[in-house]
Amino acid sequence: MPVIAIDLGGTKLASAVFDLNGRIIHSEHIYLNDSEGEGVANLIYESCESLIRIAKMDGQQIKSIGICVPGIYYANSGKVWAPNIPGWESFPLLDYLKEKFPGTNIKVDSDRSCYILGETWQGNTKGCKDAIYLAVGTGIGAGIMIDGNVLRGSHDIGGAIGWMALDDQFLEKYESCGCFEYNASGEGIRKNVVERIQNPLFSSSHFANTNADNINTRMTFDAYENNDPLAVDVINNTIQYWGKASANLVSLFNPEKIIFGGGVFGPAKKFLDTIYEEAKKWAQPISITQVKFEASALDDKAGLYGAAFLGIGD
Amino acid sequence: MPVIAIDLGGTKLASAVFDLNGRIIHSEHIYLNDSEGEGVANLIYESCESLIRIAKMDGQQIKSIGICVPGIYYANSGKVWAPNIPGWESFPLLDYLKEKFPGTNIKVDSDRSCYILGETWQGNTKGCKDAIYLAVGTGIGAGIMIDGNVLRGSHDIGGAIGWMALDDQFLEKYESCGCFEYNASGEGIRKNVVERIQNPLFSSSHFANTNADNINTRMTFDAYENNDPLAVDVINNTIQYWGKASANLVSLFNPEKIIFGGGVFGPAKKFLDTIYEEAKKWAQPISITQVKFEASALDDKAGLYGAAFLGIGD
Repeated sequence: MPVIAIDLGGTKLASAVFDLNGRIIHSEHIYLNDSEGEGVANLIYESCESLIRIAKMDGQQIKSIGICVPGIYYANSGKVWAPNIPGWESFPLLDYLKEKFPGTNIKVDSDRSCYILGETWQGNTKGCKDAIYLAVGTGIGAGIMIDGNVLRGSHDIGGAIGWMALDDQFLEKYESCGCFEYNASGEGIRKNVVERIQNPLFSSSHFANTNADNINTRMTFDAYENNDPLAVDVINNTIQYWGKASANLVSLFNPEKIIFGGGVFGPAKKFLDTIYEEAKKWAQPISITQVKFEASALDDKAGLYGAAFLGIGD
Repeated sequence: MPVIAIDLGGTKLASAVFDLNGRIIHSEHIYLNDSEGEGVANLIYESCESLIRIAKMDGQQIKSIGICVPGIYYANSGKVWAPNIPGWESFPLLDYLKEKFPGTNIKVDSDRSCYILGETWQGNTKGCKDAIYLAVGTGIGAGIMIDGNVLRGSHDIGGAIGWMALDDQFLEKYESCGCFEYNASGEGIRKNVVERIQNPLFSSSHFANTNADNINTRMTFDAYENNDPLAVDVINNTIQYWGKASANLVSLFNPEKIIFGGGVFGPAKKFLDTIYEEAKKWAQPISITQVKFEASALDDKAGLYGAAFLGIGD
């Protein structure tokens, strides 16, 4: 019996019907545009309705829906905190959908949990019981699987790795997002480029005439490939942070694999060996030989696969 | 029915008979002196025999023995790696004791696992499902409980927090023990004092005429109390590391409590509020409000309590 998977992002909603073997039978996506609050929940409802109809045409009935949300899912209350969706400071998504789809099994979880579940179900951590998905996009989060279970923490906000302290001194600029995220997320890379543009040391750079708002990660990686000194400095700095953070995950969790995913991996996949070398300097010396660093096999679909897995579970 | 608990240290072996309510009925300790290899296992055997006889005099039969070892316990093989016990690179402790005590339930685990188990059974994390015991003695390790289970990692060496990267740059001196341990263990505090003695900035210090081998943590804390500038610099540096490492535990694990134990806490208990303030700068801002930093309730008996709990379990 197929399941519906929903991957809600900050700007887009991807949805799919999966069979129990992890094959996508049908997929769709829509943009959130200016939707907010219950309007976003209604988009989820409509996407599900549309897929239920499509499944019906195939003679299939949907009894389970899994949903991946961009933020925190509070398992006890069924509420969601999604910082990029207006009106979702504490949105009662589970109750909303249970009312819309009585008798259907509804499961919700945070994106970081879904990433590692998806990767373990159908990606590069198949068969692993101890594995971590390090998601580097606009922000940074980690889905952490320990002995087959996803780490949630006492109040469902475990895995907030963007806040990892990796510097000698705390800087004021880390206050809103954390030291690691400031230096190693997509938005962090952009900020680090912008800071250096204003630094006379880098006055001759590739970026000198670019408006700060137009700078992005892809552009920085391209400039790095062209040996632009500013981009080389930013990316080398970022690799050091990825290495230190990975080392800390290795020493604490002794995982079989760390999967690098999110929009930035992507273009940063080529640095995995360099990140491993940086991590090797710092990490517990036996644990580091027992771990593999790999890119996600599911790319931007890890959340969707994880949502499908939620639907199938139990 | 009472159980026997053994806490094997690098120099001492503590043993006790516990009742099932966590009361110590009888306890003993012996020194390892020059024992090594099977000789140390034989000391464990003799301690157990002695306690079995004592229990018998009370009309009690022992059916379970729990053992806390100073290093790593490999659950699949029943072998122990204990770096401070010569001949225990891979000692088959479980098999050795099963042969000596056929029909008795024998359980072994690493010290860091036993600390958090002991503290959760009879100490300050009673009732917690997500809690961490940060053990700061000569070295540093962490016993990490997640949703009621102790984190082991894929090869039983999770919780190696001494290797945590917390600095801008890797220094060669971190190679043998890790960045956090170098700066914040008992031995690390000693090394940091010794380094500064050789630094002309601190030439007028309290320690100027002390032989490097005689410097210890207690002496450094005493000098700190007397506003010795070298000691103040070392201890403030150490507090920063404790704060950053705790912040990382908070952001990753979202625990209910972090317990500070080991020989250094002890004298460093008075710094818990300062450590929390340092951690607050770096940590995930909601998680940090959900955690409490506390000293161990069991002091140097956390491992013994944990060993008793191992014996009782299952």
